[in-house]
Amino acid sequence: MKKCEGADEVMTTLVLVSHPQLADSTSQQFLKESLPSQNVIWEHIEGQAKLDVAQEQAQLRQVDRIILQFPLYWYAAPAGLKAWEDTVLTRTFVYGDHRYPLAGKELGIVVTTGMPEPAFQRGGAEGLTLDAALAPLAALAQRAKLTWLPIFPIYQFSYLEEPEKLQLVVDYQRYLTQPQPDSLANRQAWFAQRLVDKVQQLPAEQQATGQLIASVFDQNREHLDQLTDTLAMIKEQEDD
Amino acid sequence: MKKCEGADEVMTTLVLVSHPQLADSTSQQFLKESLPSQNVIWEHIEGQAKLDVAQEQAQLRQVDRIILQFPLYWYAAPAGLKAWEDTVLTRTFVYGDHRYPLAGKELGIVVTTGMPEPAFQRGGAEGLTLDAALAPLAALAQRAKLTWLPIFPIYQFSYLEEPEKLQLVVDYQRYLTQPQPDSLANRQAWFAQRLVDKVQQLPAEQQATGQLIASVFDQNREHLDQLTDTLAMIKEQEDD
Repeated sequence: MKKCEGADEVMTTLVLVSHPQLADSTSQQFLKESLPSQNVIWEHIEGQAKLDVAQEQAQLRQVDRIILQFPLYWYAAPAGLKAWEDTVLTRTFVYGDHRYPLAGKELGIVVTTGMPEPAFQRGGAEGLTLDAALAPLAALAQRAKLTWLPIFPIYQFSYLEEPEKLQLVVDYQRYLTQPQPDSLANRQAWFAQRLVDKVQQLPAEQQATGQLIASVFDQNREHLDQLTDTLAMIKEQEDD
Repeated sequence: MKKCEGADEVMTTLVLVSHPQLADSTSQQFLKESLPSQNVIWEHIEGQAKLDVAQEQAQLRQVDRIILQFPLYWYAAPAGLKAWEDTVLTRTFVYGDHRYPLAGKELGIVVTTGMPEPAFQRGGAEGLTLDAALAPLAALAQRAKLTWLPIFPIYQFSYLEEPEKLQLVVDYQRYLTQPQPDSLANRQAWFAQRLVDKVQQLPAEQQATGQLIASVFDQNREHLDQLTDTLAMIKEQEDD
């Protein structure tokens, strides 16, 4: 059953943050506060006096999803991330002797921009898409046999309203930990798991109510699954 | 007369080299030996303990052509060049207050690669063109109103034979100092100027011979110009 894919797996995510002045970055501080509480390793690249190549490589081997998170400087990641690439991602490590230790892992990009979304297109103020700007990272993913996730852009963080920021927290957490693809089934499973976790954290006297909510959510989800199946059947008949 | 364009101008070129181990790089040492003797400033970015932003910016203002020269690491320039970009090319300097101090200057890229030319295309080992990999630099040029020169790639320098290396010296010198576009007329003017310079350096007893050679070159050039004009006329009539 594809809809249950990844629901019970425990996935580990590594978030590599590159920012030369992290403490001064409101967006990076916000994202740090928004991190999921479990199964996420967070690392600030520029925060280390000297990169420990062996340890960085070992860490990459252990995780399932790698997130590169940075502000866009001159249509690319800051120099700190490039230094990390140039140092940690040796040729021998990435594809030497046809061993590909990163093969099958996922690579996601969380990129903040000072310009709004429409700037990133031909004829826009920046004149190129984020996909085009980050093509070198996509090529790196291809070389390492990493699965490239669609980019997670955050345009003009400082202009976001409160409801947009709340939405960003959820979307960001899903980008870090939800199994791919970002399908309805995977979203449902992800939210259901979060609900179970929340209910378990409730005080004893609220457990019954919490479980009731969880069971209603589950029923709705089953109902939705049935509807989805029916729709799929109708679509199949149409295609014939 | 377009064919004489730039022939008597003195153009200054700045070559910014980024390489973390310059002394160990045979290609970079070769290119350093191949530099034209005049009107070229050569600077090794990583060779400086700390970048002097004001001085770097002043230097950029003074020159006519800026060359970024580096090996391709993970489909981009090394971290050193990115650090230079992030530090020296402040927003205020590049396009603040709608002043564009670099407008109209030329930006060229000399990039060495470990992989052969066919690797840089869809389906090739690297899966993307050099143009696509270096799109962020082209976008930077566009933002700064710099004129982007076609990339000057050097594929697998260590496999070049001696005649190819000699050709490389000439092509490299032309890329650094010849007026654009790379037309027949501009090439002729460039070679003619080099010949005049060489003749002047000859000992007195060889001056007469040298001047004879230069004058034959000039006659041939005039003859070639006439042929070019004739061809252009024929082509015009065909187009009618």
